[in-house]
Amino acid sequence: MKNTFGNSITLTLFGESHGPEIGAVIDGLCPGIAIDEKFMNHQLDLRRPYGKISTQRVEKDNFKIVSGVFKNKTTGAPLTVLIPNENIRSEDYTELRNIPRPSHADYTAFKKYNGFEDYRGGGHFSGRLTAPIVAASAILLTALKSKGIKIATHIKSCGDISDRDFEDPKADSDILNDLRFPVLDKQAETRMKEKIEKAAEEGDSVGGILETIVTGMPTGVGEPWFDSVESVIAKGIFAIPAVKGIEFGAGFSFSEMNGSKANDQIVLKNGEIQTETNNNGGINGGITNGMPIIFRTVIKPTPSIFKKQRSVDINKMTEEDLLLKGRHDPAIFHRARVVIDSVTALATADLLALKYGTDWFTEE
Amino acid sequence: MKNTFGNSITLTLFGESHGPEIGAVIDGLCPGIAIDEKFMNHQLDLRRPYGKISTQRVEKDNFKIVSGVFKNKTTGAPLTVLIPNENIRSEDYTELRNIPRPSHADYTAFKKYNGFEDYRGGGHFSGRLTAPIVAASAILLTALKSKGIKIATHIKSCGDISDRDFEDPKADSDILNDLRFPVLDKQAETRMKEKIEKAAEEGDSVGGILETIVTGMPTGVGEPWFDSVESVIAKGIFAIPAVKGIEFGAGFSFSEMNGSKANDQIVLKNGEIQTETNNNGGINGGITNGMPIIFRTVIKPTPSIFKKQRSVDINKMTEEDLLLKGRHDPAIFHRARVVIDSVTALATADLLALKYGTDWFTEE
Amino acid sequence: MKNTFGNSITLTLFGESHGPEIGAVIDGLCPGIAIDEKFMNHQLDLRRPYGKISTQRVEKDNFKIVSGVFKNKTTGAPLTVLIPNENIRSEDYTELRNIPRPSHADYTAFKKYNGFEDYRGGGHFSGRLTAPIVAASAILLTALKSKGIKIATHIKSCGDISDRDFEDPKADSDILNDLRFPVLDKQAETRMKEKIEKAAEEGDSVGGILETIVTGMPTGVGEPWFDSVESVIAKGIFAIPAVKGIEFGAGFSFSEMNGSKANDQIVLKNGEIQTETNNNGGINGGITNGMPIIFRTVIKPTPSIFKKQRSVDINKMTEEDLLLKGRHDPAIFHRARVVIDSVTALATADLLALKYGTDWFTEE
Amino acid sequence: MKNTFGNSITLTLFGESHGPEIGAVIDGLCPGIAIDEKFMNHQLDLRRPYGKISTQRVEKDNFKIVSGVFKNKTTGAPLTVLIPNENIRSEDYTELRNIPRPSHADYTAFKKYNGFEDYRGGGHFSGRLTAPIVAASAILLTALKSKGIKIATHIKSCGDISDRDFEDPKADSDILNDLRFPVLDKQAETRMKEKIEKAAEEGDSVGGILETIVTGMPTGVGEPWFDSVESVIAKGIFAIPAVKGIEFGAGFSFSEMNGSKANDQIVLKNGEIQTETNNNGGINGGITNGMPIIFRTVIKPTPSIFKKQRSVDINKMTEEDLLLKGRHDPAIFHRARVVIDSVTALATADLLALKYGTDWFTEE
Repeated sequence: MKNTFGNSITLTLFGESHGPEIGAVIDGLCPGIAIDEKFMNHQLDLRRPYGKISTQRVEKDNFKIVSGVFKNKTTGAPLTVLIPNENIRSEDYTELRNIPRPSHADYTAFKKYNGFEDYRGGGHFSGRLTAPIVAASAILLTALKSKGIKIATHIKSCGDISDRDFEDPKADSDILNDLRFPVLDKQAETRMKEKIEKAAEEGDSVGGILETIVTGMPTGVGEPWFDSVESVIAKGIFAIPAVKGIEFGAGFSFSEMNGSKANDQIVLKNGEIQTETNNNGGINGGITNGMPIIFRTVIKPTPSIFKKQRSVDINKMTEEDLLLKGRHDPAIFHRARVVIDSVTALATADLLALKYGTDWFTEE
Repeated sequence: MKNTFGNSITLTLFGESHGPEIGAVIDGLCPGIAIDEKFMNHQLDLRRPYGKISTQRVEKDNFKIVSGVFKNKTTGAPLTVLIPNENIRSEDYTELRNIPRPSHADYTAFKKYNGFEDYRGGGHFSGRLTAPIVAASAILLTALKSKGIKIATHIKSCGDISDRDFEDPKADSDILNDLRFPVLDKQAETRMKEKIEKAAEEGDSVGGILETIVTGMPTGVGEPWFDSVESVIAKGIFAIPAVKGIEFGAGFSFSEMNGSKANDQIVLKNGEIQTETNNNGGINGGITNGMPIIFRTVIKPTPSIFKKQRSVDINKMTEEDLLLKGRHDPAIFHRARVVIDSVTALATADLLALKYGTDWFTEE
Repeated sequence: MKNTFGNSITLTLFGESHGPEIGAVIDGLCPGIAIDEKFMNHQLDLRRPYGKISTQRVEKDNFKIVSGVFKNKTTGAPLTVLIPNENIRSEDYTELRNIPRPSHADYTAFKKYNGFEDYRGGGHFSGRLTAPIVAASAILLTALKSKGIKIATHIKSCGDISDRDFEDPKADSDILNDLRFPVLDKQAETRMKEKIEKAAEEGDSVGGILETIVTGMPTGVGEPWFDSVESVIAKGIFAIPAVKGIEFGAGFSFSEMNGSKANDQIVLKNGEIQTETNNNGGINGGITNGMPIIFRTVIKPTPSIFKKQRSVDINKMTEEDLLLKGRHDPAIFHRARVVIDSVTALATADLLALKYGTDWFTEE
Repeated sequence: MKNTFGNSITLTLFGESHGPEIGAVIDGLCPGIAIDEKFMNHQLDLRRPYGKISTQRVEKDNFKIVSGVFKNKTTGAPLTVLIPNENIRSEDYTELRNIPRPSHADYTAFKKYNGFEDYRGGGHFSGRLTAPIVAASAILLTALKSKGIKIATHIKSCGDISDRDFEDPKADSDILNDLRFPVLDKQAETRMKEKIEKAAEEGDSVGGILETIVTGMPTGVGEPWFDSVESVIAKGIFAIPAVKGIEFGAGFSFSEMNGSKANDQIVLKNGEIQTETNNNGGINGGITNGMPIIFRTVIKPTPSIFKKQRSVDINKMTEEDLLLKGRHDPAIFHRARVVIDSVTALATADLLALKYGTDWFTEE
């Protein structure tokens, strides 16, 4: 289904970086969810470039909703968000048409689409397309919140600089969702920004690790095997450009543990079944166990750098030096954060709708 | 779609650890693929317990194919593999019904299925169900191989013991696919086995990291966004019990790289476009770039250990000590390896069928 | 998805007429539905040949459930029904391998599967495969009934012989579901049977029209456009061999009506909104309106007849006369009836699950 | 999947009659298909009201393509067509909010969407939404034509007035695709128009039967069981408003045939395997047999009539008389014709893509 995600609640994505409009259709929404345009703008704002550490292209995201909303509430019919592309300078790209940029999708798009792809600015593969994902998913985040489910993400690490762990998941979530640079430890924030700015000065870029927490999920959600909570979240998260890895709970550090350390002991807390540790990240056998869902995502360094690189002219089949110009991000993980939250909202809402029906979100 | 994986080529999984039969239906297979029962048995053999380092339950996998094959070739109609469960001792489990085992799916299955789940031996969540996945996917592995596509996995690390990296991907793949304990460096193999045996003696278990390589994939396969090669592979891999993380190419180490180091420079080798490094694991923008696909999967330590653990009686709502008895694996990653290969075959075959049609696999 | 039907609740079908076993996997079932094997056998019995008017092949349908049931209730995991094929005489068919039977799927199967198809007795296309559909769907029929939803079908007409219309939908439904030859008017029944027997004596066959009624469906079920109630039911019904048409409510006779006659006037009956007539067959805009769903399905005459026919030897490419031997049905519509009911159960249950969640069926 | 149709090639539909824009996203298109805007406008023109026999609302369909096209060719990325709604007079409808129109979707939409639906002009259920289906599918019709596949529809009958049967399928198809009122027999055309005009004068409406022919389909396309050609086409066709029945080949008249008359004898014509008659409408066992696909669709009379009708005030729960005002069609089947062709193109292209891959459409 290519550009569509989900089963009960689906999002279909379309558009190109330099086309007239980009957008998303979200179907299966419960009728009666109030549209909070202010929150949608807040989310889009978190995705936008930010200060010195991001590209200077001013991307105004004046979204419009052209279907599925009536009297400011979802109708239940497909909801479509459109965002016009403005401030486009296509000439920045056309000269590079035959010389694919390293670690971008230029060459693979060329091969996939037999040379018919819109190559301007990454075309359909551009990170720009995450904007409609963010706008549309904001509606689901609102609906999830009304059922007590919160999603938040911080920058866990950038190189050797690490943020503190979650302490109070719900309180930390509230803090993070208001921050443009989502780091809980102020010292870590300062050092990360310095690292990014230094890379920018050198025409280079940096990668990082994001950590996401979902609190308030009912127990028993998810499916065995191919629609496990991990499967569904991972499928969505790997759709996000620059994501190259995901781990749940203790993740890769499980390889250094014995079972006796790794197993989450089952205990009673305030009369409720919980686990002492949360190495399994809130999921056993693919199903939620009532503990917070925790996962980490690695975002590779922005491939657009301003140092001399090597590539090949795909027409002449000759090796060529390549020096990029233009406006780009030395880091994108802080902006990717809201995209992670958005896709996580899509994934969790879809699994909830499968179990409880699409009407569940407005039930009282 | 819960227990079904794939779009053009689908696998539907069913059964329980202690039910009469487990099985899988694979649909969308090209007609005319020769059934290699010897290879199917070889693959099932790789999944079976092995020597001192695995459970002593003798799981005979006498599979039978009850549909979709005629005159020893696939017909194109759904192919169904059934494996009877033998040597079942249900009494091992019934006494534990109310006390979920830590880090197993016992508690989540109970919550998901409202207490109606078959709780014997993990029921539908049992690793036992990977057997029909392995048997059915062996047919795809054969078909892929006939098109020059090879899949292989080794144990990359177990604690601080690491296997060597892939050197000659195709030759290494052939070596690995004949090994029951898939490690390329004999010294590392010895040390890993010692580590596993030591854990076994202590009633404990260990986790590890598997690394998988896919060679020979055509360039331009995969879809943008939600059916990216990473999305499709990850969705399948996270269906496998005990998997808690996956990373492609440089994966989580991207967070410690600058773009100038991370970017794979594009070069000509023998007149073909390749990349100098393969940090992107053969995938850009979700699409294959012609380099080998490489990913790593972490397998958590087997949750069944023989040390005293803590749990809760879900009827009485009292905390209880728990001491497991029976036959179990101190490690499962060496057995999970062939399941990883199988799911990778499903994922890649599905993406290939989408692009080239289901008839492609027997074309000459 | 080829051999799979449904979204929230899915049925996957496999097997061949002369293979060892045929079966179906039904996924998405609510846990806790009691298995009524007696009713399953009753349904299979309705599908089986009946007296003089059907083939003499004794098809014993000794189904077994190999997954998804524990302590005689659904677990929520995929439920698999297997039915062994017995009493197979493959030699009846092999001599005809190169001469496709008119109006059967022999030639199209050959073309679709490039000559690799199991051609014995219709192979995967055989009406025999409706048996596992019937067995598996009986579980859904039980679940639907517990929510007040009843499905029933009668033979509306066979040639110029017509059964009476539904008078009391629920009472008529109960009567029909106990009849092997589902006709409400005894005189019509006698005449239809005479017609079938006469055709049988002549080595010929007859077609007929079935009419199905669904009572008790909640209002507001179904989706606009591509998952309209009509779309979903029709997709399922056309999967049944020999079905060549379906019409809802007034159906094709709408072409002879003016709007003023066709429109169902909206009225109050016992304080509830209903329509005076039911020309729309309980569906407006693809959504249930609270009136009974009514549709008619045409079943073509059994293509297996015992008169001389014309065909082509596909190897020699020569025209050939063809005279079939063996055991066959002069009519199948009376047996197709329970298949129609079964597929209707799948379709309605799937749409209900989408709206109310898969757990709805056992809620009180 | 509600508002999405197809598997390999999908169309997602959105919008409301009185919203700002309606549209469709078509995904899975082969890259490199030339966009023929003139043909797209021609198709939209066929859908638009026509002369005295249609509503006077001037619906200008100034579509724009906002994604998936570059240098006037499909890129392979999702293609989005948007059509702005103009000339909207919402006040025509708001006064009727509480009194659902008979045989419209007003009441069912209210129940499905719990009162949150956009009720203006039929909202999401409006026939207006067929415009983006027509525009988007025109691209597929072009692609199919380049592979020798033609689709055409005529008005087979309206009341007791019938058009002649197809004689030369390809030539007749070419004629029909240029006609605004698609009837092959000029006398029948005149009489049908008179009938429609007479109904219009009386404030009434009429229904009719459309007959569609698909020529040039390769043999062996389609899937057994749930994705039979009939299943896939019927699922799409029943999405079209006012369709209440579909029959393939001899359809409902099979109930009056014996098998000896119904069976299509297999013969050689010009060295190719064909059938003497085409009672099966080009399909056996759900798979194309090389003969033209033929099916008939019944379109109910437009429910908007200008005679006094009965309804219920859903707030007050009182019976009310209803007299509609405004601009409406006394018949829509002549306009529905191009929508039938469009959906048929979606269905056949999807089945072809499954077998041959999405790249097939531009191969030479």
